[in-house]
Amino acid sequence: MAGATPRTARAGYKKWDRTDLTFVELTPGTAVAGVTTQSKCPSPEVEWCRAALTLGHARALIVNAGNANAFTGSRGRAAVEAIAARVAGQLDCQPSDVFIASTGVIGVPLPIDKAEAGLTAAFAAPACSWQDATNTIGTTDTFAKAAQTQAVIGDRTVTLVGIIKGSGMIAPDMATMLGFIFTDAAIAPELLQGMLTAANRATFNCITVDSDTSTSDTVLAFATGKAGNAPLTTVDDAGADAFAAALADLCRQLAHLVVRDGEGATKFIEVRVEGAKSDASAHRIALSIANSPLVKTAIAGEDANWGRVVMAVGKAGEPADRDTLSIRFGNTQVARNGLAIEGYDEAPVASHLKGTDIEIGVDIGLGEGRATVWTCDLTHGYISINADYRS
Amino acid sequence: MAGATPRTARAGYKKWDRTDLTFVELTPGTAVAGVTTQSKCPSPEVEWCRAALTLGHARALIVNAGNANAFTGSRGRAAVEAIAARVAGQLDCQPSDVFIASTGVIGVPLPIDKAEAGLTAAFAAPACSWQDATNTIGTTDTFAKAAQTQAVIGDRTVTLVGIIKGSGMIAPDMATMLGFIFTDAAIAPELLQGMLTAANRATFNCITVDSDTSTSDTVLAFATGKAGNAPLTTVDDAGADAFAAALADLCRQLAHLVVRDGEGATKFIEVRVEGAKSDASAHRIALSIANSPLVKTAIAGEDANWGRVVMAVGKAGEPADRDTLSIRFGNTQVARNGLAIEGYDEAPVASHLKGTDIEIGVDIGLGEGRATVWTCDLTHGYISINADYRS
Repeated sequence: MAGATPRTARAGYKKWDRTDLTFVELTPGTAVAGVTTQSKCPSPEVEWCRAALTLGHARALIVNAGNANAFTGSRGRAAVEAIAARVAGQLDCQPSDVFIASTGVIGVPLPIDKAEAGLTAAFAAPACSWQDATNTIGTTDTFAKAAQTQAVIGDRTVTLVGIIKGSGMIAPDMATMLGFIFTDAAIAPELLQGMLTAANRATFNCITVDSDTSTSDTVLAFATGKAGNAPLTTVDDAGADAFAAALADLCRQLAHLVVRDGEGATKFIEVRVEGAKSDASAHRIALSIANSPLVKTAIAGEDANWGRVVMAVGKAGEPADRDTLSIRFGNTQVARNGLAIEGYDEAPVASHLKGTDIEIGVDIGLGEGRATVWTCDLTHGYISINADYRS
Repeated sequence: MAGATPRTARAGYKKWDRTDLTFVELTPGTAVAGVTTQSKCPSPEVEWCRAALTLGHARALIVNAGNANAFTGSRGRAAVEAIAARVAGQLDCQPSDVFIASTGVIGVPLPIDKAEAGLTAAFAAPACSWQDATNTIGTTDTFAKAAQTQAVIGDRTVTLVGIIKGSGMIAPDMATMLGFIFTDAAIAPELLQGMLTAANRATFNCITVDSDTSTSDTVLAFATGKAGNAPLTTVDDAGADAFAAALADLCRQLAHLVVRDGEGATKFIEVRVEGAKSDASAHRIALSIANSPLVKTAIAGEDANWGRVVMAVGKAGEPADRDTLSIRFGNTQVARNGLAIEGYDEAPVASHLKGTDIEIGVDIGLGEGRATVWTCDLTHGYISINADYRS
C-alpha cells in the first residue's frame, strides 16, 4: 500500500513467543477517520484517538497486543503519552499524529519500558506484509482476518486494505475488536469520517457475538493519498460514491470475519427484520434476536425453534403485534400472521439449519422499517473459552 | 390454606406420566392482584388475566403445564375462553373470576378436549398438598419451589403460601416463570395490587437467568380473607406494613428459588450496585452486570475477573466514571477509584468464589442510587439444556 508501511516487533507484553507490537508508518498528509466504543469506561487509548481524530491527519498507528491498558488510571494514560512522544520523535511529527490501540488483559498498566523497547525494535525492523501485521494485532483470534477491495475514482484505481482482530464485540478479558483500514485514495478527512460513520452503522454496529461491548473497540481508516486521484472532498465528487461503496463493502467483509470467528461459533447467522415501524426499531428487534441466548443455543442445536424468535421480538420493547408476525428460516416460512403454518415442509428447514450459514427472517407486519444484523451461535466452546480464560 | 383448595389432574398435554393441570378453588370474596410479562407478544392467558385483574376478585386458578398456548392466534384464545366457561359453570361464578396460566411448548394451540377432560378430573379429585400443586405446575424445573411465611394483623396471624415454577426469567421453549401466592388475609384488591407491584419491583423484576423475557410470565396473589382479620384497605391500616413486608419476603424467597434453579446454574450471584446517580440507574447497571455472559462465565470459572465487571458497567449506558469506580468480590475490595488494588489479598477472594453464593459489589462513586439483583452463573449446563431441548 503506497504510503502505509507496516512493521512488527516483539515487545513481550505477555509471556509468548510472537510479535505483539505493530507499527504502521503513514506518509505525510494521510487523512484519518475513526469510530470508537460507546462504553462509558473507555480505555485511555480510545480517549487519545478520539482527541486526535478531531485533527484529521495521521503519521503512524501503533497497536499493542496482550495488554488492553484499560482501567489503569494515570499510569495507563502515561503509557499512551510516552508511546506517542516516542513515535513523534522518530517521525518528526506531532504526538497527535500518532494513533494508538491496545488489546488484551485489563487492569494492568501497559509497561512503558517494554513498549519503548518494542518501538525501538519496530523502527529498525524491515517492512512486513499485511498478513504479518494482521497476525500481530490478534490475541485469541483463531484465524487472521483481513480483506481488500478497490474502487475507481476518475482515472485512478484506489486500493483499500483492512485488518481486524476480535472474536466478537468482545473477546475474552476485553481483548476487543480493533479494525484498521488503509487506502491510497486521496480524500478529505471529514468526507472519510462521514463515509466511515455510515459504513460502521451498517456493518460493525450490526454484529454481535455475546452482547458485551468492550472498553476498547476502535476502527480507524487511514487514507494516504498516494494513488494520485483528484482528491475527494464532497459526496458529490466523481468517484465518491464508488469509494464509499468500496469502503462499506470492506467494512462488511471485516465485520463478517469477526462473527465467523466468534468465540465458540460453529454457525454464522444473518437476522433480517422487515415490516417494523422504523429502521431503528427493526435494528433493535434484530439485535434482541441476535443477542438472545435461547435463539443462539437453538441454532447451535439445529432446532427450528421459532417460538424463541417470537420471545425475542416480544422482549425487544419495540412495536410488535403477535398477530401480524411472520418468521422464516432460510427460504421456508414457518409462521405467518401469528400462527404456525400447519404442515410446512420441515425438510428444507432442517437442511438449512444443518449448514454453517443460517438466515432468520422476521416480518413484523406493521411498517416499512428494516435492518440486518449478524451473529453466531452460542455453544459449549463459548463457555469453555470464557470460564477458563484467566485461570 | 383456609379458602384456597388445590387439586390436580392429568390432562395429558404432553406424553408424560404425571399430573399437569392444577385447579385451585378460591372461596367467594377472594381478592386478587397480579403482575404480568412486559413482552409485546404475550400469551392469550396473560391477556385474559390482565382483563380479569381489573375486576379484583377470583374464584379459581387453572394452571396448565406442558403447553404455553402462546402464539396460537384465535384457537389459543378460544381454549382460554373454554376453560373459563367450564370452570365458571362448575363454580357458578363469572368466567372473569377464573384466572388461567399455561407454560410449556409454544405455537401449539392448547387442545380444548384435553383441557376439558382434565378439568372434569380435577373437579372430582381430592384436595392435594401445596407440594403436589407445586410439582404439577413445573416443567423443566429441577426441584419444586415453594415458600411460606406469616404476618400478624391486629389479633390475627395470617399465612402466605407461594408456589412458583421456572428456571429463570425464561426456561426452555418459553416454559416460563409462573408464580402464585395464596393468603388467608382479608385485604382489598387495590391494596393487594399495590403491595404486589412494590414487592415485584424489588424481587421478581430483580432476577435474571439469561436476559430472555418470556411471553407468559405471570405472578398472581390471591387473598381469601378466611383468617378473619379486620380487612386491610389502606396502607395506614394496622398490620398493613407487616403484611406488605411478609409479602415482599415471600416474593424474595420465591425469586431466589428461581435463580437457584437457573438453567445449568452452579452458583447464586448477588450483584449490589451503589453510588449510582439514581436507584433506576443502579438497577440498569446491576442488570447489565448480571446479564453479561462474560461476567457469568467468569463466575462459573471461579475467576475474580473484575475487568469484565468494568466492561459491563461501561456498556450499561448509564452515568459512570472509570476513575471513581470500585469493585469487590465478597468482602474483599479488588479495585478502588478506577485502579486495581495492588497486592490485595487474593486468598479470601478465591475462597469466596469457590462457594455457591457469590456477591459482587460495585460502587459507581457518583451518587446515592443503589440496587440489588440476583442471577446465576453461565455454564455448559445451560448450553446442553437449550441446544438440545426440542430435538
